[in-house]
Amino acid sequence: MTRATVRDVAKATGLSIATVSRVLNGQANVARHTRELVLRAVDELGAQAPRPRGAKPVGSIHVRCPYLLDDYFGLIVSSVAETLALHGRQVLLDAGTSGQRTTVLPGLPSRSDVDGALLILPPEPAEELVRLRDRRFPFVVVDPRTELPRDVASVSAAHFAGARRLMAHLVELGHRRIGIIGGPSDWLAADGRLAGYAAALSDVGVLPSAELLRHVDEPTTAHGHRVARELLGLPDRPTALVAFNDKMAVGALRAARELGLSVPGDVSVAGFDDLDLSRATRPELTTVRQPLQEMGRMAVTLLMRLLERHELEALHVELATELVVRESTGPARPA
Amino acid sequence: MTRATVRDVAKATGLSIATVSRVLNGQANVARHTRELVLRAVDELGAQAPRPRGAKPVGSIHVRCPYLLDDYFGLIVSSVAETLALHGRQVLLDAGTSGQRTTVLPGLPSRSDVDGALLILPPEPAEELVRLRDRRFPFVVVDPRTELPRDVASVSAAHFAGARRLMAHLVELGHRRIGIIGGPSDWLAADGRLAGYAAALSDVGVLPSAELLRHVDEPTTAHGHRVARELLGLPDRPTALVAFNDKMAVGALRAARELGLSVPGDVSVAGFDDLDLSRATRPELTTVRQPLQEMGRMAVTLLMRLLERHELEALHVELATELVVRESTGPARPA
Repeated sequence: MTRATVRDVAKATGLSIATVSRVLNGQANVARHTRELVLRAVDELGAQAPRPRGAKPVGSIHVRCPYLLDDYFGLIVSSVAETLALHGRQVLLDAGTSGQRTTVLPGLPSRSDVDGALLILPPEPAEELVRLRDRRFPFVVVDPRTELPRDVASVSAAHFAGARRLMAHLVELGHRRIGIIGGPSDWLAADGRLAGYAAALSDVGVLPSAELLRHVDEPTTAHGHRVARELLGLPDRPTALVAFNDKMAVGALRAARELGLSVPGDVSVAGFDDLDLSRATRPELTTVRQPLQEMGRMAVTLLMRLLERHELEALHVELATELVVRESTGPARPA
Repeated sequence: MTRATVRDVAKATGLSIATVSRVLNGQANVARHTRELVLRAVDELGAQAPRPRGAKPVGSIHVRCPYLLDDYFGLIVSSVAETLALHGRQVLLDAGTSGQRTTVLPGLPSRSDVDGALLILPPEPAEELVRLRDRRFPFVVVDPRTELPRDVASVSAAHFAGARRLMAHLVELGHRRIGIIGGPSDWLAADGRLAGYAAALSDVGVLPSAELLRHVDEPTTAHGHRVARELLGLPDRPTALVAFNDKMAVGALRAARELGLSVPGDVSVAGFDDLDLSRATRPELTTVRQPLQEMGRMAVTLLMRLLERHELEALHVELATELVVRESTGPARPA
């Protein structure tokens, strides 16, 4: 059985070869009528239809995000997928929490169908990433969990600067006794944000108090709720709470409500991330916007340059965060 | 250059061939120490390391979800990815809204690297899906947008039953004049839910009023907000609003707040989906739970059976939904 060529379909439909190729390769911006014409011709050919270019042997990109694709991770993966598609690359997705229990990285360099990888908040220890680099496999880390050597490409958000700006906002409102619902203590992001909080407090001569800082293992709403109850139950209650992320801040809002405290009248609450969630709460959350989609796009750009064996000047890219003031923060109530 | 075999690595490490294979194939439940031992041995071999089994020629599954992977679509894709991994299948991800402008389906059957597809709320017209079936390409549709022939496998949530149960809850609370913030009028889900609302109203002798029903093109918070303002601005104001999804219900809560109406005192508000969002609002949202992750798992199960050329008895699978009553619905205020 011989296959028809794109030229045959072009002849049969009276369209140009370029147009037929665009339809077959799934490219955008083909008029609906034209597309229908090509598809009908292809249908008639059946198994003899031309093979689309997608079958050419360009390797896929392994995208590892071993978490639930929620409003946070899902947004990063969406923009990664869209940007890789623009580069004509296929995405091999490795997602969902069960992936945390599998060993994936060591096998990647010897796979003929994979050209590179994007690793989102990889749970692997740094040594495993270093080993991958030593084998000269092209990959980029998004939101590294631990410190990485200078020559491992990574993209993250400006955790320190964002947290510092947020804390400065609370300090300007007169807050000094501020409870911190921290992220997992071994995460780079949690460490950077803590340093940012401390910097803004130190500007007004306040040292962070151990009593007011709690870490959680997993940054969930339930943990945010539990820790906020502890902090708001202290004899000398904090006038504000900052949470590692918006989900934990939602738990803090719930805790305040249960204790009969008004937000921001009795206690201010702030998050981090700027998920949709932060505009659904009442009061709406003051938070720090992470450019999640831009992080995905930037990571793909870096990876494409690694694949083309370009030298990268800056291998650690940090994208700006932005303070978003909404309703959940207000002046500190005088003691 | 000759490659080392799994046997060589087993000999070098003193481990069994089965254990070495498990590490190389990324399987779970290998002790950390054992894993390290294998990885060190592989590192020493460098480019001569054995090729993992992942490179064997079993085709990937194309997962098409041309939307932002938010708390809704992301949850479906996560469970699809995890379940396909359990079946030893790779996921080729096609996600992000820009995918709506590309032609993907006609090229799938002739691709040698793709064995089947999962299509999540496919934007393509039914004819294009029928054409794919005619070419005997194995695929399953999750949450079909339009009516599909009986022999196209699909998984959806029980839209009708869920909506009926929700409306019955409002009717029991005494509501009769209920505004409906409907989804896109050509979506099967929107149609099913409308029929469910109408069934519960008809049980108490009420016909849905055209004045109280509005459709939107896209079920977003902004549209929910706009439509809720229109409905709450009617001279004879509805005592309750039901929204096509939780995002639109969040917009409705905002509209009520802006108009100085208390929820549920002055007006009840309900959503659909049971996203995290619905527990972040104040009051928390009454909604209908869609089993998003179970939908993903079921779709993979059906696809695996199609790939094994099993006959499927039920090709249209509908999974149960569940009414979740929270704080945003209450007794109708007497007129």
